[in-house]
Amino acid sequence: MTVEFSELVERTLDECLPAAGTRPAALCEAMRYAVGSGGKRLRPLVCLNAAIAVGGRAEDARHPAAAIEILHNYTLIHDDLPAMDNDVERRGKPTVWKKFGEAEAILAGDALLALAFRVAAKAPRNADAVVEALGDAGVGVVLGQADELSAMRGGASGSATDDDFAYRRKTADLFVAAAAMGALAAGGSAADVARLREYALRFGLAFQYADDLADGDGLFTRETAESRVAEHAEAALAALSGLPGDVSFLESLAKRVASPCGFRGFRV
Amino acid sequence: MTVEFSELVERTLDECLPAAGTRPAALCEAMRYAVGSGGKRLRPLVCLNAAIAVGGRAEDARHPAAAIEILHNYTLIHDDLPAMDNDVERRGKPTVWKKFGEAEAILAGDALLALAFRVAAKAPRNADAVVEALGDAGVGVVLGQADELSAMRGGASGSATDDDFAYRRKTADLFVAAAAMGALAAGGSAADVARLREYALRFGLAFQYADDLADGDGLFTRETAESRVAEHAEAALAALSGLPGDVSFLESLAKRVASPCGFRGFRV
Repeated sequence: MTVEFSELVERTLDECLPAAGTRPAALCEAMRYAVGSGGKRLRPLVCLNAAIAVGGRAEDARHPAAAIEILHNYTLIHDDLPAMDNDVERRGKPTVWKKFGEAEAILAGDALLALAFRVAAKAPRNADAVVEALGDAGVGVVLGQADELSAMRGGASGSATDDDFAYRRKTADLFVAAAAMGALAAGGSAADVARLREYALRFGLAFQYADDLADGDGLFTRETAESRVAEHAEAALAALSGLPGDVSFLESLAKRVASPCGFRGFRV
Repeated sequence: MTVEFSELVERTLDECLPAAGTRPAALCEAMRYAVGSGGKRLRPLVCLNAAIAVGGRAEDARHPAAAIEILHNYTLIHDDLPAMDNDVERRGKPTVWKKFGEAEAILAGDALLALAFRVAAKAPRNADAVVEALGDAGVGVVLGQADELSAMRGGASGSATDDDFAYRRKTADLFVAAAAMGALAAGGSAADVARLREYALRFGLAFQYADDLADGDGLFTRETAESRVAEHAEAALAALSGLPGDVSFLESLAKRVASPCGFRGFRV
């Protein structure tokens, strides 16, 4: 099932991105390069599986799934810019600004962000609510990034704090949108959409704390991060109870995030 | 009437932007600074008047109107960046990156772009089509900017050419979205939406050529620009015929763009 889902994501992304050679060619090439460079596609898989979890069809969530992956990839392009994290490599390849130049990277990110909404609006049900969910995440992720930037500059990095505003906004908000959009596009009930939002919030937080542990950095101490991963993964699993459809993939994600290997080498 | 419309735009923008002091404060201040710094508000006024032109209510187009102005202002923030036009002043004040820093300017632009879609989705009718129109413009404006960047770097600036791809995308597309969104949100017929798209395409092109003449630069010769302003302004006026509502404001814009003073000192 997940292999089929993975193919559905790739096919939809390919359909939605500007065809190779579309004018202006360099920009469209940069857009395809960014989205096509081998991410785990976790967010679109959460989106499709949220549709299944409410008893709907994955097919109905394919545009929202592509939209959240496109939006996720715009954030990576802009985060890598010299004025931001100044990264030259991502997923073993040159970052977009390093390969295409800084102006093209700013513009490619901008174009992907706008395209994400264009694609989300194709949802077959509740298109306005789908777009609102993506809009909340799109604003949230930037607020989180800016908040983390201030914390890093203010020297709060590595200090023990209870405040995970940045993690909620920059990471969890995208998973929340992925789950909510999938459930909404598949016609899920308000109660089931709320269950999936809670699942995704908790999974997203566990994911960000686990990412800190894997990278050996982040805003929190190792002990804090370890206990937060366990706590949020458990809450994510609990939130799945009562859903009418198949939740096995979402369950496996929540178990994997709490396991020692995490998402290293993840492939469906 | 236009003064009331202007107040409706400012009130809606104020409601939709993050309240002063919202976390993270610097980013939200940068967002408000960018949108609040005294533009002509032409695009939102076109949007509200498109609602009137189809026989609808301006009030129904207030969120689309705010959305197009928010999107327009994100394009200005990113265009001014050092890696793009490297401008330090706009409308007599420091540009966003000059005042808040480069990273904050990238992020403030990103947040405004996402917010524009969040706001557009509040349209009381045809929200999915409203978002699609904004998405087309959001992608188009970036394609136009990237195309112009290539042309400038390739040395085509000032050369006589018939190719106004960049002008259609970077300028006219936003006016087309403004008109289409206003007409759709007010429940206009498909034929009337099409009339207003044609009006806005032609007005937007005339506006860009007139802007070149005023600034003494651009991709075209002075003679070409002058004849294009007249031709497109006339076509814009012609496109208004057959609309059921009041088109006097849209008419006045098309006349003004073709007049010697253009939009210098424009205030409603």
